[in-house]
Amino acid sequence: MTTSTTHALDQAIRLQMTAANQFSGHCDETYLNMVGPFGGMTAATLLNAALQHPARLGDPVSLTVNFAGPVALGDFEVEATPLRTNRSTQHWLLLLRQDGEVMTSATAFFANRRETWSEQVAACPQAPAVDELPRMERHERAWFKHYDMRYISGVFQPGGEESNDSLLWVRDEPPRPLDFAALTAIGDIFAPRIFSRRQAFTPAGTVSMTHYFHATQDDLQRAGSDFLLGQAGASRYHHNYADQIAHLWASDGTLLLTSTQVAYFKE
Amino acid sequence: MTTSTTHALDQAIRLQMTAANQFSGHCDETYLNMVGPFGGMTAATLLNAALQHPARLGDPVSLTVNFAGPVALGDFEVEATPLRTNRSTQHWLLLLRQDGEVMTSATAFFANRRETWSEQVAACPQAPAVDELPRMERHERAWFKHYDMRYISGVFQPGGEESNDSLLWVRDEPPRPLDFAALTAIGDIFAPRIFSRRQAFTPAGTVSMTHYFHATQDDLQRAGSDFLLGQAGASRYHHNYADQIAHLWASDGTLLLTSTQVAYFKE
Repeated sequence: MTTSTTHALDQAIRLQMTAANQFSGHCDETYLNMVGPFGGMTAATLLNAALQHPARLGDPVSLTVNFAGPVALGDFEVEATPLRTNRSTQHWLLLLRQDGEVMTSATAFFANRRETWSEQVAACPQAPAVDELPRMERHERAWFKHYDMRYISGVFQPGGEESNDSLLWVRDEPPRPLDFAALTAIGDIFAPRIFSRRQAFTPAGTVSMTHYFHATQDDLQRAGSDFLLGQAGASRYHHNYADQIAHLWASDGTLLLTSTQVAYFKE
Repeated sequence: MTTSTTHALDQAIRLQMTAANQFSGHCDETYLNMVGPFGGMTAATLLNAALQHPARLGDPVSLTVNFAGPVALGDFEVEATPLRTNRSTQHWLLLLRQDGEVMTSATAFFANRRETWSEQVAACPQAPAVDELPRMERHERAWFKHYDMRYISGVFQPGGEESNDSLLWVRDEPPRPLDFAALTAIGDIFAPRIFSRRQAFTPAGTVSMTHYFHATQDDLQRAGSDFLLGQAGASRYHHNYADQIAHLWASDGTLLLTSTQVAYFKE
């Protein structure tokens, strides 16, 4: 059995505090994407700075990550500043730098959450059981092999159906208990919508991504290391940019994450 | 005819550059909400700092605003820093302070956009003509009177239907040609989802909001000073927080904005 401290994800997001509000980390080839590392892992790393910060209050409710430039292999610095701490909420500014230059900027909002009236509006879509679906076997990008992805529809592949929407089961490979960092990374699991929409490759990439964490610690614990169901769609593709609206549900149907992003596409 | 320079919106978002990356502004009672000014106007003000900045490149593609504390009546400072400028894109950090304390933080992404393959996925909902609907006549908040809002469904009012979703026509009052600042403000026009869902008041407010601007300058010009159609829904209400996913269309059906936010609610 793999313990969480030796999982590739935990290696990738590992940070060392070097001074007040300052952390150092290292990017290797494990989760490499087309240009730089898988954006979900960069997002998880930035969130991790706030999660590990001694001044942290509560749990993440929202996270926005702006991908300003490709993170290069090697060391990086993360500056994590609690911009404002209220009685039960906290606002963060998170900056990832290499050679003094900002590669990724982020803001996060944390809070102590109490029990309230609750209701889930977005019902979990119908989907075949995980066991009935083949695992996606693709190796173009290093990070693919660290996720077990089982597409139900909207996969980007030669001869695939042109679709704005994608639906898949996904979990870390090997399995790893879900936490805020892992959920953050999985929230970026979907290929740019334009790939499946046109079933054609064009240079593309996320420029800004926002996660809203519905999941509380209880929800995460219940989700465990089981598969999550993810669904993503788009509203408009226009003049180099398209949005994406996505949701992730636990296998018991609990909505864990609402995520949006805007992605560049070349033509 | 009201010229754009004398419109209340232009007064509200007006900024004076005081030093490199530094602007000063003033908050008066014009757009006052329950606690502090209407969040949409604060968002528009922050965006305006980047729009007016001498180093500005291109047009806004995304904007995230975090409401850390209530902006008080009186003067404020905005620090607008271009974190990174690439060949055709630019990343901004925007901080609004009063008495040295961060009240609102924001990040924005700007880009020069070129013509590409385009497609609108999110179709404009069916709605009765504006003239067939009464204007919402409510005066609890100062900012209401600066918008002409005509609800088709999901209005929060005594005896109203319990609904997660709201649909309305909306424009500035008096009419004002649409630009990125006005669109930013209108993107926050919807009441917290929990109000219409339960048709009951609870302390509530947006803590983080993200806009994706599908609208290019051409789209804005075509939209003119006509009504926009806005639709908002929610995915989950849980432990003090709920998300909102919204869209704004021009009267010709063009999707101008995808907006998400997460809002606090007390119980």
